[in-house]
Parts: sequence; C-alpha cells; structure tokens
Amino acid sequence: MSIKAYRTLQQVEVIVGYKTYIDLVAELVKGKEVISSGMMKEVDRCQKAIEIALQKRSVAVISSGDPGIYGMAGVVLELALKMGVQEAIDIEIIPGITSANAAAASLGAPLMHDFAVISLSDLLTPWKTIVQRLEYAAQGDFVTVLYNPVSKKRTEQIKEAQRIFLKYKPGNTPVGIVRNAKRGNEEVTVSTLAEFLKHPIDMFTVVLIGNNRTFSSAELMITPRGYSL
Amino acid sequence: MSIKAYRTLQQVEVIVGYKTYIDLVAELVKGKEVISSGMMKEVDRCQKAIEIALQKRSVAVISSGDPGIYGMAGVVLELALKMGVQEAIDIEIIPGITSANAAAASLGAPLMHDFAVISLSDLLTPWKTIVQRLEYAAQGDFVTVLYNPVSKKRTEQIKEAQRIFLKYKPGNTPVGIVRNAKRGNEEVTVSTLAEFLKHPIDMFTVVLIGNNRTFSSAELMITPRGYSL
Repeated sequence: MSIKAYRTLQQVEVIVGYKTYIDLVAELVKGKEVISSGMMKEVDRCQKAIEIALQKRSVAVISSGDPGIYGMAGVVLELALKMGVQEAIDIEIIPGITSANAAAASLGAPLMHDFAVISLSDLLTPWKTIVQRLEYAAQGDFVTVLYNPVSKKRTEQIKEAQRIFLKYKPGNTPVGIVRNAKRGNEEVTVSTLAEFLKHPIDMFTVVLIGNNRTFSSAELMITPRGYSL
Repeated sequence: MSIKAYRTLQQVEVIVGYKTYIDLVAELVKGKEVISSGMMKEVDRCQKAIEIALQKRSVAVISSGDPGIYGMAGVVLELALKMGVQEAIDIEIIPGITSANAAAASLGAPLMHDFAVISLSDLLTPWKTIVQRLEYAAQGDFVTVLYNPVSKKRTEQIKEAQRIFLKYKPGNTPVGIVRNAKRGNEEVTVSTLAEFLKHPIDMFTVVLIGNNRTFSSAELMITPRGYSL
C-alpha cells in the first residue's frame, strides 16, 4: 500500500468497500464507520459514498490493487457526473499497486518491455471483444497479463486464451502464475505456455505470458529490456 | 511510494541510482552511502550494487515509478544470473506505482478496461517492432499508454504513433497528457487524437489514448468498465 493511501484511510471518517477488501485493512478500519457489502453491489456502494461526501463527510472507497485499474475509480466518477455533483464534492483517485505490478515483482522481471493487460471476465465485456484482444496481444508480441483468468463459472476462457497464444508462440514460452500477489499467502509458479494449465488457477490468480525474448531461470521469469550486459 | 519501499530505503546501508531519482528521495538518503551516476550508466550501477551485496552489505537500487516496469529489476536479475551469484545474494523486487497508474489517477479513470503499455524509445528496441505493436494496440482497441513519447533527439515517433491510431480511431478519441505524474509539479491535459500534438510533450510525459468507449467530461478522461449506472 502507498503511504498516501495509508494516511488517507487513517484520516477519513467513513470507509466503503467490498467485505474481502475491508478485511485486508482491518487495522486501519478500527473505530470507523464502515459500509461493506458483497460482490456485485459495486454501484450501490459508490452511490452511498457519494451521498456521504455530499453531507460534507470524508469517505474513502477502497478497491484491491489500484482503484484506477479495473477498479472503483470509474464507477465513482461516472456516478458523480451522472448525478451532476462532480463539482460539489472533491474526488481524488489515489493510485496503487495493481496485480500486474505485484505479480511481476514476485516473478522476477517479466514486464521490462511493452505489455498488455486483459481481463478474461466476460460479465461486462462481450467474449468476442476479449478474443480479439487476445489475438492482437499475441501477434504484437506483448508480454500479456491476464486478470480474472478463471472463476467458479468461468473455466473455459483460459483454455481458449492458451489456444490463441499457441497459434503465434512456441509452447516453451514462459508463463508465470501468481496467486494472492503480495498478500502474505502468495503462491508463485513459473511454467510454460504448453503446460501452465496443469497448475491450479483461480480468481485470486494472475497469469503472465512472456514475449518472444522472455526466459526463465532459477525460478525467475525475465524479459530482457535489451541492454548489453 | 509504497510503505515497503520507504521502510527499505530507511533500512539499507547503500542506495544506488540515477541522480535525478536520488534527488527525489533526498530526505531518505541523508547520511547514507550513495552511488549515483548519469543516464546510460544503468548496467554499471547495477553491477556495483551486486558487488556491494556480495560484501554482505544491504543495498537498494532505485528506479522511478515501478522498478519492474521498464525499470532496473531486469538488469539486476540478469547480471546476477550472468555472474552466477543469484543464490549468493538475496534480491527482492519491491513493486511501485508506474507512470501509467499515476497518470491514470490524475486523468480520472482511463484504465478501467484492457490496456497496452508501449515505450516509443527506439534506443533498445527496433522501431519496426514498436510500429507493429502500435498497429496491434490500435486495432485491438486497447487503451494505450505511451511511455517515453518524445526526447530531445526523438521527435518524429509520436507523430507516427498518432498517424497509426488515426487509421483505426476517430479524431475525437480522448487523449490524456500527463507530465511529472504525481511528482508535485504535475501538468494534466485532456485533448483528442486529432489535436493532442498541439500540446507540449517531453520525456517526463506519458500519453494515454482512449478506447472506443472512452469519453471526456469536466476535464476528466473515463473509460467505462461497463456497469449499468
């Protein structure tokens, strides 16, 4: 967590967030008003936060990772614009460390070169759009970070992603799998494009597929930046 | 800066880094041994840091943003592998907040959906490879973050990037320009794909090009995640 995020959570009167994320900052939340609810209630929570801010109370909406990467920043701003209150309240987005950055640090240095981040969740995005992006990311030889690779109901998409990448890349392309990146109970695996589905992958996991220069060594995954060493 | 990075800089005996970045953490560096040098000496600096670690002294190599995104993490790990000392020293990569995250937070919420990060620097990468990635990022409708868009000697590449994106995207696609993202003297501009080159862009700037749903409003740049509001 950034120093700025930490200090902000210390200072605000009310903290709003998904229960799992509130639990991750339990120490900071003590004694504060907390508005928590389950998954799929994102919009309701952000609306409540805006209503609290309109009462001139200070409130923080928390996301995991970075609120600006597939997080709550967009919902808060869109709602404030829709309600016509974006000038009446002072909204600040505090950047954080998203799973791509956290997982990369645990794998070594896979993101030393151009990369793409793609969510495999088709709840809010047509699967056809996601497939097209996978095709372009693979052809463009981007190091590719897959968010939400698997959920209880979504198990086939990661197999399709593997199939697409194997059209353009050799089976020995390094693939990193990181579960609970930098959350204390982290699990890190370095595998290959041909083999990585043999390892457990769930909704707390991100998957990183190397580019054509990425190599693995000593359980590290490294994409050379191109310096002569 | 993350709490972890801050505490690490407090604890180590020696800090190694490019002078400009050392100056950004002047407070933390006071009283410590500092090994600093200009640009283009990255490999030398990392080698020195490894030699210090081999003497059982604690040393931090600093990068701006996130050392794992186009930063020094890769050089340190590659050198340690090449020298055969990766097991003799304990190397930890501490993730940070890269320009993409920082700039996104200042623009509003442009990275709520799949995105690509591309460096326009052709010092270490053939320009042909960069052009191909720009083509695929534009066709894949990724929100695209351009690092190193311009330098003193590199002024044409950003024009070529604009030309490529205009082949696939309308001229009114929002483009965000952020200089010195979250460094205190930040400058934020929201423009369009057709017009953004009228604004000053230099090596301290990142440029974010929206996807086909990104909109701008009240000087914000927002890519909807897709929730119904």
